[in-house]
Amino acid sequence: MDERVRDHAEVLVDWSARVEAGDDVIVSVGPEAHELAVAVAEKLGERGANLCATYSSGEIDRAYLRAHDGDFDEDSAHELALFENADVSLSLGGGRNTSATADVPGETRQAHRQARQDVREARFDTRWVSTVHPTRSLAQQANMSYEEYRAFAYDAICRDWESLAEKMSNLKTILDEGEVVRLVSSGTDLTMRIDDRTAVNSAASVAYDSHNLPSGEVFTAPYATAGEVTFDVPMTLQGETVRNVRLEFTEGEVVDYDAEQGEAILGDIIETDDGARRLGELGIGMNRGIDRYTDNILFDEKMGETVHLAVGRAYDACLPEGASGNESAVHVDLITDVSEESRLEVDGEVIQRNGLFRWEDGFSG
Amino acid sequence: MDERVRDHAEVLVDWSARVEAGDDVIVSVGPEAHELAVAVAEKLGERGANLCATYSSGEIDRAYLRAHDGDFDEDSAHELALFENADVSLSLGGGRNTSATADVPGETRQAHRQARQDVREARFDTRWVSTVHPTRSLAQQANMSYEEYRAFAYDAICRDWESLAEKMSNLKTILDEGEVVRLVSSGTDLTMRIDDRTAVNSAASVAYDSHNLPSGEVFTAPYATAGEVTFDVPMTLQGETVRNVRLEFTEGEVVDYDAEQGEAILGDIIETDDGARRLGELGIGMNRGIDRYTDNILFDEKMGETVHLAVGRAYDACLPEGASGNESAVHVDLITDVSEESRLEVDGEVIQRNGLFRWEDGFSG
Repeated sequence: MDERVRDHAEVLVDWSARVEAGDDVIVSVGPEAHELAVAVAEKLGERGANLCATYSSGEIDRAYLRAHDGDFDEDSAHELALFENADVSLSLGGGRNTSATADVPGETRQAHRQARQDVREARFDTRWVSTVHPTRSLAQQANMSYEEYRAFAYDAICRDWESLAEKMSNLKTILDEGEVVRLVSSGTDLTMRIDDRTAVNSAASVAYDSHNLPSGEVFTAPYATAGEVTFDVPMTLQGETVRNVRLEFTEGEVVDYDAEQGEAILGDIIETDDGARRLGELGIGMNRGIDRYTDNILFDEKMGETVHLAVGRAYDACLPEGASGNESAVHVDLITDVSEESRLEVDGEVIQRNGLFRWEDGFSG
Repeated sequence: MDERVRDHAEVLVDWSARVEAGDDVIVSVGPEAHELAVAVAEKLGERGANLCATYSSGEIDRAYLRAHDGDFDEDSAHELALFENADVSLSLGGGRNTSATADVPGETRQAHRQARQDVREARFDTRWVSTVHPTRSLAQQANMSYEEYRAFAYDAICRDWESLAEKMSNLKTILDEGEVVRLVSSGTDLTMRIDDRTAVNSAASVAYDSHNLPSGEVFTAPYATAGEVTFDVPMTLQGETVRNVRLEFTEGEVVDYDAEQGEAILGDIIETDDGARRLGELGIGMNRGIDRYTDNILFDEKMGETVHLAVGRAYDACLPEGASGNESAVHVDLITDVSEESRLEVDGEVIQRNGLFRWEDGFSG
């Protein structure tokens, strides 16, 4: 086995999920994530945790969903009991085809998702972490060879997370104390309020309220957004390419939008509900192990020298205790490159210019 | 997808497990059983059952068990809760290497098995069925090409089970009413008592107390065994070939044994405990879809024109209500070919001669 697979497993089990002896751990295994699952099993054995492996396959989902009449049973007691009794839930993604469920009708998918709400919430009550095993299918999506993609993925995943978390805490402190954020870049001049909001130092560990591996972003929940923003990083949304999205905000709401490509999909998303017209997230990518876009949000939004904004649902972790933030059925991230001719200001002070933070060499305020 | 895979799934879901709308179904998927899992998912979707797929891999077990210190936690609450809340549990075997766990120490395996006793019992309380997807690894074990093996496996699995169950019920009636069974063949003249015992018509369905697909045997729990028996079907036990086993019984107990090959393994088994010296099962194979030995007990013991006897544990289903039968930590089946120069008698009457039952064409009493 490639040592990088074992390193990945160790980061996941020890740093990300903080697994301890006696923990009841669910490991969800994608059809092509077998090798990572073997490495994770070894690590769980060493730690004395209890392992229950589940199987997560788009082809199985597709076969099940297309055959079903769509009237889903909301009482899937066995799966609910599994998650309710688990301490940790690790998801090891990796299939053979990222479009495996492309021909499942949207309403079927939606109805099934709705029926499984309790299971999803029970999973969120565990120490959950999602990661992917670099597969040929993900390499293809990224327009990369398999070996090149593996090197890319492990650079993003196998980092010195403790050291990165320390750097990221600088930004968290600034955002926690700040009141107004302004982002200026080509086609972008946007202000957002963040007072009373708490930033999450998303350092790829449940100890930091962070549930993705790789991670490496600091995010918060903005409101009262005003101005214009252009997202120059292309991405696939609902199976279609979306490119150069432009959103215009007044008093927190999208009042105009267009896109060079995929404008209809963008429209569908923004018209989903009231919350989809407002921002749910401002995220600042700080993982410099990610050096290119691969059309996979798990990686793209964490990339160093990028900023992303999500329309839709806000994360509770960013809100004052008991408060409710922006609510929506969607949460769709859009990304903009800030490596050139850009600046990020908090309360009028420049904290990042042309991709460099104020505590980094070469920064000029 | 090969139509035979869909047929297999249909037999499993409808005939074997009797799945109904709203059933909470666990589907345990081996790493090479993906295709069958997709077909089963489709069938479960059609029936409106709830699906939770688990992943069962010898390589994961090996990695976990070898890394563990051997002091296993008996309270694996999440997996126990999964099975306790399930109605049906389908196991779809199929890996890449039937020897995947060969280098796990026996005591580790035993300790883990012991710690999972509750999970195993909870599974037995569901409508459980074990089957295998024909894989290259199983073909190799059977000394067959992949396509040849697939044809073999589907002949055994995709049968007219209803019609076979009716034929098998003839034999069940005879055994239920009988008191003494005598088996005579080359190197064999053995008598066993079966009064008060109930035969199981193992027709590959939970409706018949039968939990294997394929199945096709009628079995009971004999006692007071006397005489000699030779098992001429070779098999692999604990990784070693065992051939031409001969057992001699007096008053129900093995008093002498030998084997042309693998005598040491045979000795280990028989010396396990007191129960391992007595018979736990007399089984009569009636599945003529199985036309050769493949060194896989799931198939071999069901083959038409064979009889098998197991030393060790008896099945409760064969015993009078509340009675306890032969108890042992082992249950090891040994098989003898009865297609030539053989006869099976119940209370002095010949019911099978040279492989033909008394209700079959060509039978001569």
